Amino acid sequence: MKIGICQINPTVGAINKNKQLILENYNKSISLGAELVVFPELALTGYPPQDLLLREQFLKRTANALDEIAKHTSTPMVLGSTLVDNSDLFNCSFLCENGKIVGYYKKILLPTYDVFDEDRYFKSGSEPSVFELAISGQTKRIGLQICEDLWDHNYSKDLAESIKEIGADIIINISASPFGDDRLIERSNLIKAKAQKTRLPFVYCNMVGSQDELIFDGQSLVYGPDGNLIAKGKAFEEDLLIVDLKETNQINLPRTKREESLYKALILGVKDYFSKTGHHQAVIGLSGGIDSSLTACIAVEALGKNNVYGISMPSKFSSSHSMSDAQALAGNLGIDFREIPINSIVESFEALMTPDLDTNNIGVAEENIQSRIRGNILMALSNKHGWLVLSTGNKTEMAIGYCTLYGDMNGGLSVISDLSKEDVYKISKWLNTSSGKNIIPKNSITKPPSAELRPDQVDPFDYDIVSPLISALIDNEKSPSELVKNGADLDLVKNISKRITLNEYKRRQAAPGLRVSSKAFGMGRRIPIVNKYDELSNE
Amino acid sequence: MKIGICQINPTVGAINKNKQLILENYNKSISLGAELVVFPELALTGYPPQDLLLREQFLKRTANALDEIAKHTSTPMVLGSTLVDNSDLFNCSFLCENGKIVGYYKKILLPTYDVFDEDRYFKSGSEPSVFELAISGQTKRIGLQICEDLWDHNYSKDLAESIKEIGADIIINISASPFGDDRLIERSNLIKAKAQKTRLPFVYCNMVGSQDELIFDGQSLVYGPDGNLIAKGKAFEEDLLIVDLKETNQINLPRTKREESLYKALILGVKDYFSKTGHHQAVIGLSGGIDSSLTACIAVEALGKNNVYGISMPSKFSSSHSMSDAQALAGNLGIDFREIPINSIVESFEALMTPDLDTNNIGVAEENIQSRIRGNILMALSNKHGWLVLSTGNKTEMAIGYCTLYGDMNGGLSVISDLSKEDVYKISKWLNTSSGKNIIPKNSITKPPSAELRPDQVDPFDYDIVSPLISALIDNEKSPSELVKNGADLDLVKNISKRITLNEYKRRQAAPGLRVSSKAFGMGRRIPIVNKYDELSNE
Repeated sequence: MKIGICQINPTVGAINKNKQLILENYNKSISLGAELVVFPELALTGYPPQDLLLREQFLKRTANALDEIAKHTSTPMVLGSTLVDNSDLFNCSFLCENGKIVGYYKKILLPTYDVFDEDRYFKSGSEPSVFELAISGQTKRIGLQICEDLWDHNYSKDLAESIKEIGADIIINISASPFGDDRLIERSNLIKAKAQKTRLPFVYCNMVGSQDELIFDGQSLVYGPDGNLIAKGKAFEEDLLIVDLKETNQINLPRTKREESLYKALILGVKDYFSKTGHHQAVIGLSGGIDSSLTACIAVEALGKNNVYGISMPSKFSSSHSMSDAQALAGNLGIDFREIPINSIVESFEALMTPDLDTNNIGVAEENIQSRIRGNILMALSNKHGWLVLSTGNKTEMAIGYCTLYGDMNGGLSVISDLSKEDVYKISKWLNTSSGKNIIPKNSITKPPSAELRPDQVDPFDYDIVSPLISALIDNEKSPSELVKNGADLDLVKNISKRITLNEYKRRQAAPGLRVSSKAFGMGRRIPIVNKYDELSNE
Repeated sequence: MKIGICQINPTVGAINKNKQLILENYNKSISLGAELVVFPELALTGYPPQDLLLREQFLKRTANALDEIAKHTSTPMVLGSTLVDNSDLFNCSFLCENGKIVGYYKKILLPTYDVFDEDRYFKSGSEPSVFELAISGQTKRIGLQICEDLWDHNYSKDLAESIKEIGADIIINISASPFGDDRLIERSNLIKAKAQKTRLPFVYCNMVGSQDELIFDGQSLVYGPDGNLIAKGKAFEEDLLIVDLKETNQINLPRTKREESLYKALILGVKDYFSKTGHHQAVIGLSGGIDSSLTACIAVEALGKNNVYGISMPSKFSSSHSMSDAQALAGNLGIDFREIPINSIVESFEALMTPDLDTNNIGVAEENIQSRIRGNILMALSNKHGWLVLSTGNKTEMAIGYCTLYGDMNGGLSVISDLSKEDVYKISKWLNTSSGKNIIPKNSITKPPSAELRPDQVDPFDYDIVSPLISALIDNEKSPSELVKNGADLDLVKNISKRITLNEYKRRQAAPGLRVSSKAFGMGRRIPIVNKYDELSNE
């Protein structure tokens, strides 16, 4: 049997556009010989539609579009969409053929953790489903699953086994599974094990594209009943795979470097956020530091060099290298570069706000004024030219609040806010090495990081120590006492975890950040602002 | 039987402090003759603890504190806290007496809609529970419920009836039910009906206090088996009620004006946000308009007049009345008032950013610069003096994005962002009338609203028409086509609903706003930023 796996990039809420995209891919699949065509989870609505699912009209329009799609079918199609049944809503995999919906499977396992809220919207299905299809004169029994159903070990279930028990010849899992730096391996191990255990071919069709904070990486997978990988969809782009399930040639999972995967994920994140919100051009404050440099590289890959504007906004505290490094980067990338020195504005604030601002005794107020002037300049350029401001803070800074609210935190999208400072260095070095030239000026990588908001300032953290501790606390959800038990300095961990708690208020007002780790700040991490819990104190 | 109903105000995460608060109230209740002492839902952790519930140490510390509380008991106590059972987490009502936990009930109905996410954290209990207690030599059979269990009609269940069937003499519901302008009536109707149907006394103990966006209003209620209200806790403050269930005197629900309830709710919201985050003083940009005026009144009630700073920041577009009205308001309230004119800074931006800014042709860039300069000034004062900036935008503006991100949207807390423009007027007028003097200058109420960011500007909306339409779309969750069907202008509804969708990106970066309606922007309304759904178009 030849299966068309349509790894498409739908847009949330664009029901008509998604319908067209589905029909185009369906027709193309058939013309390429597919006998069954498969689309991702909720391909018709986009994922996650969030509270659009609470709107009756939205569900009706989705149901109508599904009917219209079904009318166009001849060859069977498996497609993810919504179903209202007895006033309950279900996340479904529909089977359509010969002009009709001929069956559907209601998702059983509804993820309600991290970035997922499916219990908020959907009722859980109760029965595994197998559907009989006549394909090339033969009867095929198709077992349907949706995304989380694959992660059934977390629920002490074995849904693949259940599907096999009721007679499936093949398992088709349609997914909207977001990227995380270890997700491909995790998925492929799970699928391989299911194929081997059930001795059934396993088709895994994943969504691709970015939606707000989430990046779907595609990388659809097909495993044969012997546990051999026989097909894989592209990473981070749409793909249409025509896979003959009789295929026995094994292929290998690509061994992409982690740095490359993260970089490409972020490029897709930027690209889709712009195209799906109708933006084309970005503006970035270039400080000559590594964070804004890496952000600019990603933006150029996503949008093209003619669509990225780099602005250097030196103050009297800016080093000469901060300007020259920024300019060198812009030159390397071939982007428009402008310098707008902020001294005159800083002075107007100082003059106006005497005695509140003390130029001889620079504290947080005097520092932040500068950052907020820069934020204001970038937003003025944004408002004037329609450029979208990209925020350049990394995850380590966002964790401890080493950033200025309404200043350098300004932006429509926070590109690298889920990369630790450690990862920012790693990816920057990889980028320079793999491209064979120092796109990011060497000095931006080697010099000590500094906000340059007062004389001779350098960041008051040893990132080599602090960045991994923060990653352990946030990404790996280790507890502070665990870190201390494992040898970390008590006072340092106390200080870091206190800062993480206190700076929740800043993160709550941060630009949406592209999620590339297993635990990002944002929708998947819901910590109260008013929060007196401190594990390392006895309060 | 005499019941002590402890309507307390715990703080999320402050396990030790909450423990002390519980023990103090318990001891006081006993000294006042209580034979059973009741505390709200999750009183020990505070509500909602959100992702703190995912931390093993947090749950352990909570369990330890509960054990310590139980050790102090003689007379029975009913207390809300968490239970880890077989590695599942439950939201429980614990019964403690004579130094021990003697029983617990696992919450059956877990709200997972609007601001609630309980399915994310808790497993649902399956059994109604009744516990026998010996009180004054008599056996009493106590049926326990938790909050949402009362709203059982939404789940086609009758949990009160089930409790009665297994022998309860009395129903005790412990709650953390947030304020909404119609919530008291809704709760009292439900409870009265349950009491009448089961012929059992019904004790409803609600939390009081504010947590991030949520305001818990207290107003605990006790109904007799005949459906008579026999006791009610105070609104918006802690209370300790000692209620004899033999009481037959009926009391009436107070008929508080809606304006007064909303005003008092917001005062509590501001008060608790400050006290629980360790802030004491607020700074507000006073424009002479009605929004900032009402915000200042609320802040003064919450924090005291010596703790509120009003800043007027006129530009060359500011009318003389905007300054005089602001000053008059500050005088009426007795707060510190400062004028910081921003012209010189605006000019520095214009000089620096020629030709990007065009002083002869004022557009959104030139307008926003002014708003962002003001935002920067307020934040500088905040950073210098530790004052917390209060944001003053209303819900109507927030809906359609008639506000400046990183400008007038700046603030640690958005005080009136869940009040429609219509409600802002109503409450302001009520305030002046009820206080017998024009605290808010009459001119601020009668003049046409204006952002004063360009010459002769007035807000480009007829709020009398637009504000109710927005309330219908957001608060009442009407669909745009319903509004049109009911006679609203198609183009206007199209325009408004498009603006609401497009401005999701601004609201995502807004300060947390105090929720007083049934549907507020914020944690209870999860709309994607990338969102191409438009009910009134065929796209």
